[in-house]
Amino acid sequence: MANINENYLKLKAGYLFPEIARRVKVYSEKHPNSKIIRLGIGDVTLPLAPSVVDALVSSSKEMGTPEGFHGYGPEQGYSFLLKAIADNDYAPLGVKLDESEIFVSDGSKCDCGNIQEIFSQDAKIAIGDPVYPVYVDTNVMAGRTGEAGPDGRYANLIYMPSTKENGFQPDFPKERPDLIYLCFPNNPTGTVASKESLKAWVEYAKKNNSIILYDSAYEAFISEPGVPRSIYEIEGAREVAIEFRSFSKTAGFTGLRCAYIVIPKELKGKTKDGQEVSIGQLWSRRHTTKFNGVSYVTQKAAEAIYSPQGKKEIRASIDTYMANAKLIREGLIKAGFDVFGGVNAPYIWLKTPNNLSSWDFFDQLLDKAQVVGTPGSGFGPAGEGYFRLSAFGKKDDVIEAIRRISAL
Amino acid sequence: MANINENYLKLKAGYLFPEIARRVKVYSEKHPNSKIIRLGIGDVTLPLAPSVVDALVSSSKEMGTPEGFHGYGPEQGYSFLLKAIADNDYAPLGVKLDESEIFVSDGSKCDCGNIQEIFSQDAKIAIGDPVYPVYVDTNVMAGRTGEAGPDGRYANLIYMPSTKENGFQPDFPKERPDLIYLCFPNNPTGTVASKESLKAWVEYAKKNNSIILYDSAYEAFISEPGVPRSIYEIEGAREVAIEFRSFSKTAGFTGLRCAYIVIPKELKGKTKDGQEVSIGQLWSRRHTTKFNGVSYVTQKAAEAIYSPQGKKEIRASIDTYMANAKLIREGLIKAGFDVFGGVNAPYIWLKTPNNLSSWDFFDQLLDKAQVVGTPGSGFGPAGEGYFRLSAFGKKDDVIEAIRRISAL
Repeated sequence: MANINENYLKLKAGYLFPEIARRVKVYSEKHPNSKIIRLGIGDVTLPLAPSVVDALVSSSKEMGTPEGFHGYGPEQGYSFLLKAIADNDYAPLGVKLDESEIFVSDGSKCDCGNIQEIFSQDAKIAIGDPVYPVYVDTNVMAGRTGEAGPDGRYANLIYMPSTKENGFQPDFPKERPDLIYLCFPNNPTGTVASKESLKAWVEYAKKNNSIILYDSAYEAFISEPGVPRSIYEIEGAREVAIEFRSFSKTAGFTGLRCAYIVIPKELKGKTKDGQEVSIGQLWSRRHTTKFNGVSYVTQKAAEAIYSPQGKKEIRASIDTYMANAKLIREGLIKAGFDVFGGVNAPYIWLKTPNNLSSWDFFDQLLDKAQVVGTPGSGFGPAGEGYFRLSAFGKKDDVIEAIRRISAL
Repeated sequence: MANINENYLKLKAGYLFPEIARRVKVYSEKHPNSKIIRLGIGDVTLPLAPSVVDALVSSSKEMGTPEGFHGYGPEQGYSFLLKAIADNDYAPLGVKLDESEIFVSDGSKCDCGNIQEIFSQDAKIAIGDPVYPVYVDTNVMAGRTGEAGPDGRYANLIYMPSTKENGFQPDFPKERPDLIYLCFPNNPTGTVASKESLKAWVEYAKKNNSIILYDSAYEAFISEPGVPRSIYEIEGAREVAIEFRSFSKTAGFTGLRCAYIVIPKELKGKTKDGQEVSIGQLWSRRHTTKFNGVSYVTQKAAEAIYSPQGKKEIRASIDTYMANAKLIREGLIKAGFDVFGGVNAPYIWLKTPNNLSSWDFFDQLLDKAQVVGTPGSGFGPAGEGYFRLSAFGKKDDVIEAIRRISAL
């Protein structure tokens, strides 16, 4: 038998969401008549916007004609989409991007998972805690960590706890990291970073020769003025940061698959003997070697969200979700919970009552209220004692879920 | 600056196809009025089949309704597609697959590139030569090879030359490999392996505890009876082989992106201390952690090729390409070339005349006949002195290309 990559065996049992699915399945089999409300996984529920459907339909028909057929596209993305992204997502923020700095992909999960490949095997990694599990797991698989300890922390990984005590703003690591994963608006806590805070991170990265991997998949949910939507709003960020964006939550593309990353030309890495290397060129090499571009019809669908009508429709969906977030947030506060997030993000983060563990609260909520949420500890050790509810459900379900939780 | 993955710097200048594109661009800029015929890159040219377009259109409309919307799907693929694959691609060959043994992805390039991740860092790799460059490049990036030598061969990689002399059937490696990449019908040579030959490979893999990575992306082009379409037609292959399949060439999905791999339950790897590990489970962990499934509309499109009408339409496209292959093959033979492939594969492989190097013949063909092909040396050192023409062009272009080549 061939030898396997043993780093995989360091991974803790199962990815978070399959484990939730397993517990829910066991419960439903025991209680076949109970109406379970799912506010766990961050999946959208509203249908695709009419503009998006129109674009899918017309580009699909186009693909059925000799003149309109598209085979392999440019791995980096079609120019029409790259331009739409630069013009609509960045230009209004005062951020000027060249099309060659944008790489379209089939999802932020893939981008966040794959980006580590272009860095050194012994790169030191700093991650927020709690955090989207993909950042950690993909570095474990790559062998950049040791085993997980009894506290759930992997050896040789720098954890930056974000808790109520520090206002969910991770402190700078004590040890110098090569790569720093930051996510704002944050999944799972729903909290944001101020311009001052991001400015300090950019300065820190410059001083320490670190690269920031900035996940802003939820920027479309920011409602308060002054909150930065892109790290490139900060001066100097082009020299130290890669940004991840997604159409999944912004435009309900979880089932269509489209995202992108931005790697500015100024961003450089180095070899051990000091030779400078363009990070964008390295990524381009990975992207063209292991990926063959996003479906033409999907890119046409993504382009459609930038039309005036598309923007209006997307805005309406986001407003619907954020109205849910408000209902959850205010309902839980009224019910006496300690609640965070839900203002600039579709996630509500709460402290479990009576110091229950995250999974105990999960089981209790499932058993007593038939509501499914996500245990905070699934996002990292510092998430223990917290719990995430998602605002992506249907309004009636959200109201019923809050009624049930309040009645506990 | 953060340290980079220096293995990337071992890669030879640029992936093959971008280099071809660059030379063609230079030529067209110098000769703006010349009509260039492209038989280089293996991209399809016929439009999507009507059944596929219908499925795309109806599933896109479905995604615009509250009842028909699909968000995150199962990472492994929807059951409707897994079942269609098992029932149509394998059951008729007498191969019984469980749905859990099939993993749908967004392309064979990704699957072939990613599969190496689940194996040991020091796994010894054997590859056919010439071969699809992705197998080699992704192992270089992962650090499993040394530098490339002056002959273009990377150190610490086992090359298995396939040339006219051995009938394009690679010999068994002299040194034991952990992983053996095989591709039949072969890209680029267009040749196939007999049942006896595959049987010998399965026995070899068993005896040497190796795993065969069997790329059969072109099986739909097999026209001769008795040529194996799947390695699982060979007894015992379930214990030693992973199979890669793609909708790209079969159904013209190069611009839609859908493929799959098969990992039988019997396939095991091991840790260095001898613990047995399921390869399917390892891949599942990778797939669920770094990938979020293929678009629902694309999976519905893929399902449509298995309907009676879909099958008829797909067959017609393949017949068109194979008629091109026949034209090229027979035209070149008539013109005095030494020609291989083109019978069970959409690729024609030829010996360059007058012992020209592959790239010299490329430049000559571009300059004198305005025909673009692919230099054999781009597929590996043993491809030097050979040249690939693809049958995916339009019939009129193919006829004109052969006319021009014959006139040289």
